Amino acid sequence: MAEGFGDRLVRRIAATSPLCVGLDPSAGLLSAWGLDDSPSGIATMAETVIEAVALVAAAIKPQVAYFERHGSAGLAVLEEVLERGRAAGLLMIADAKRGDIDATMAAYGEAWLADTSPLAADALTVTAYLGIGAMSDVMALASSTGRGVFCVVASSNPEGRALQEAQTAHGSSVEAMLLTQLAEANALERDRGAGLGPFGAVVGATRTAGSLDLSGLSGPYLVPGVGAQGATPSDVGALFKDVPRRSVLVNASRSILATGPDREALRAAAESLAGELAEALS
Amino acid sequence: MAEGFGDRLVRRIAATSPLCVGLDPSAGLLSAWGLDDSPSGIATMAETVIEAVALVAAAIKPQVAYFERHGSAGLAVLEEVLERGRAAGLLMIADAKRGDIDATMAAYGEAWLADTSPLAADALTVTAYLGIGAMSDVMALASSTGRGVFCVVASSNPEGRALQEAQTAHGSSVEAMLLTQLAEANALERDRGAGLGPFGAVVGATRTAGSLDLSGLSGPYLVPGVGAQGATPSDVGALFKDVPRRSVLVNASRSILATGPDREALRAAAESLAGELAEALS
Repeated sequence: MAEGFGDRLVRRIAATSPLCVGLDPSAGLLSAWGLDDSPSGIATMAETVIEAVALVAAAIKPQVAYFERHGSAGLAVLEEVLERGRAAGLLMIADAKRGDIDATMAAYGEAWLADTSPLAADALTVTAYLGIGAMSDVMALASSTGRGVFCVVASSNPEGRALQEAQTAHGSSVEAMLLTQLAEANALERDRGAGLGPFGAVVGATRTAGSLDLSGLSGPYLVPGVGAQGATPSDVGALFKDVPRRSVLVNASRSILATGPDREALRAAAESLAGELAEALS
Repeated sequence: MAEGFGDRLVRRIAATSPLCVGLDPSAGLLSAWGLDDSPSGIATMAETVIEAVALVAAAIKPQVAYFERHGSAGLAVLEEVLERGRAAGLLMIADAKRGDIDATMAAYGEAWLADTSPLAADALTVTAYLGIGAMSDVMALASSTGRGVFCVVASSNPEGRALQEAQTAHGSSVEAMLLTQLAEANALERDRGAGLGPFGAVVGATRTAGSLDLSGLSGPYLVPGVGAQGATPSDVGALFKDVPRRSVLVNASRSILATGPDREALRAAAESLAGELAEALS
C-alpha cells in the first residue's frame, strides 16, 4: 500500500515549509506578467513558478477554473503542469472543488486521483453540498493511491457563512458536522497505520480562532486567505494552535505571483512568506 | 440583449417535451453499448444519443465528470458534443456542479457560459457551499449571454439531507434560503422583461411534495431522480404542481441509455418517457 497523503504532506512540509503557492493564471495576472491570456501563456507562467518555488514550497495548487477557461487546450496545459510539478518534488493539489454523488463523484476521483489519469494530482479539493456520505468511492480511491482529498469546510469568504454555520438536526453546525465526518474517515486510516489521515479540510485563515474546534481532524488543513484576503501568518498560528505540527498547508497566490515573472524575486517572496509561516506554526 | 435562458427553455419544452436526456458515458454503459472506454467511444455514444433524441427531448445534459476522466482528450470530445447538440436545436446543459468564489467562479462562468468559449453550453449546474452571493459574476454573465445557471438546492440522494435541511440563522433551511436567493435574482431579470428567469434550481424528484415551497422561484427546475433512482413522472407532477407550466425539465439517463445503441429504440424510449412527463406536468 502506498504511503498515505497525510504522511507524505508532513514529510514534505518538514523538508520545505508550510507554504502552498496558488497558481491562479487569471487574465489580469497573465497581462501583468507580459503574457498572453492563452494556453501557452499559462504554460510559461506555470513553468516559471514551479522552477522558482520548488525548493521552498511544499505544494503548488493550480486553480482549475483558470485552465478550464481555455477548454481542452487549457486542460492539456494543466496535465503538463501537474506532471512537471510532481517531477520537481512538489505536491500538486488540484483546486477543482468538485462535488457530486456516487458514480459521478467516483468519476471525478478517477479523473484526478487515479494513477493512470492524465490529470493525476496529489490531492483534490471537493465541496460537499450533496453530503460527504456520497463521496465514499473517491475517498477510497484516494486512500488506495496515496492521494488526498481536501473538503471545503469553512471558506474564507463572508457569503458562505450562513450556509456553513447553519444548524443540523444533530445539533452541530454544517461545518462542524463535516469536520466530524472527515475525522471519522481519518480514524479508519489511522487504524491501518497512517500517522496523519489523508482527508483534509479547507478552512479560511480569516475565520476567528476558537469559533470552530479544529483539534480532532487528524488530517491536513489547506488554508486560503493569507495575504490578499487579509489574514496574516500569526492569524494562522492562532487559528491552528491545537492541531498536529506540519499538518497545516497555507496557500498564497496573489501575494507571491504579483511579484512578476522574475524567478529570483519570486523565490525571495516565497522564502519570506514560508519563513513567517514556519515560525507562526512552529 | 439575448433572449433569456428561462424563456428559451419554455419555448423549447413547448416544441418538444419536458425531457432532458442525461449523457453519462460511464465505463459500464460504454461497455454495454460495445464501445471502448475512450474519448472516441464517448464521441460515438454522444453522436448516437443526439441524433436519436433531437426531436423528442428539450435538452441533453452531459455529465462532465465522465469526460474529465479522460483528461484534455475527454474535454475535447465534450467541446464537439456541445457544438453538435446545439446545432441540432437541443439545449445543452453542462452538468459540472462547479462551485467556488468571486474571480474563480467568474472563470468557471467564462469556461461554460461565454459565447467565445470552446466549452460554451446553454446552462451550467453549480453548487453553492460557498454561498450564492459569491456567484454574482457568473450569474451576470449568464444573463448577458442568454444562458442559464442551475444551482443544486435539494439533491436526490439521502446523504445530502442533513446539510440541505440545516437551519440558518434567518430561520429557514439551507435549501429554502438558496431558493429565496435565486428567486431574488430572477425577480431582477423579470423586471428587465424576462418571463421566466434564467436562474434555476436542481431539485430531486425523490423529494416529498410539500416539504419545500417551490412556487416562488420564477425560474426553471432541473429534476434528477426519475427512473433508475425510483421516482415516477406522477411524483414529478405532484412535486411541481404549483410552478409555472413548462418550467420543469426532467432528467433521465440510465432508463433511456440502457436501451442500447439502436437509434430507433432510443428514440422510442425517449418518446415514451417524454409523453408520460408531458402528461404529468400538463
